[in-house]
Amino acid sequence: MSQSHLSKNYHGLMIKIDGVILTRLRQIMDERGGVLHMFRNDAPEYKKFGECYFSEVLPGSVKAWKLHKKQSQNLAVPIGRIRLVIFDPRKVSPSYLKLQVIELGRPDAYFRLHIPNGLWYGFSCISKDRALIVNCADMIHDSDETQIMPIEVADIPYSW
Amino acid sequence: MSQSHLSKNYHGLMIKIDGVILTRLRQIMDERGGVLHMFRNDAPEYKKFGECYFSEVLPGSVKAWKLHKKQSQNLAVPIGRIRLVIFDPRKVSPSYLKLQVIELGRPDAYFRLHIPNGLWYGFSCISKDRALIVNCADMIHDSDETQIMPIEVADIPYSW
Repeated sequence: MSQSHLSKNYHGLMIKIDGVILTRLRQIMDERGGVLHMFRNDAPEYKKFGECYFSEVLPGSVKAWKLHKKQSQNLAVPIGRIRLVIFDPRKVSPSYLKLQVIELGRPDAYFRLHIPNGLWYGFSCISKDRALIVNCADMIHDSDETQIMPIEVADIPYSW
Repeated sequence: MSQSHLSKNYHGLMIKIDGVILTRLRQIMDERGGVLHMFRNDAPEYKKFGECYFSEVLPGSVKAWKLHKKQSQNLAVPIGRIRLVIFDPRKVSPSYLKLQVIELGRPDAYFRLHIPNGLWYGFSCISKDRALIVNCADMIHDSDETQIMPIEVADIPYSW
């Protein structure tokens, strides 16, 4: 919880974990319902389209921790609000052992978050209604490259 | 409204507009919130990733009509419920002047809908809460290839 103040101030330049990119997305208002940008093939961090899928998170629920050895994530939260935590276990990284907390949700924090491979991350729903995360990953799901670590055993300095 | 009975019975084989593909998607249950499949690069109708964006539709609202001369749509509805109507104005099509109504929403009608270029389509929110459509289109947005036709002037045999 000690990092939660960061979520009040984040923007592109505040990201302190190497390779993570936070990009403000356009919300085009319409009285019938808005159009929300997410990801285009001309985005700087676009490499390849692997898979688009959704993760629903119920109020108060936590999904953590996960690390992808190869796959990179591109996330946005069109519904509800998410607190997302990233931890850097890469010994060669300039941000080795750094941790960052980011809140994602409309209208004020409608961002795309790029999480490169090799980082631990997890998230919780902090809205009173369910949240929906949309992920455009650069590879299709492969359990061989996915690591899961239960919260109880994780040696990560963050308490959910 | 005369076509609405179709929405009760649709599946892959019931699609009557040439080139439209409806694919049932997996919903992986989890007590913290489910994981919902949407689109992978090995899907039969995957050609290219152009852009992923969201369209929110407020209860009772209608967004119609739209036609893309070049762009194809790949839609799913993870939140709320949508009635989507497609009309075929392609003179060379075996389904010329045919119209189809499809309902999209969880859990019973969680599908991916592929709409090729050249078709008029529109949708309304029929759930009591807002709906969210996710679109993985095969081109980035280009207003030059997008045609809009207001409901009032459209010569399409469907009454919203």
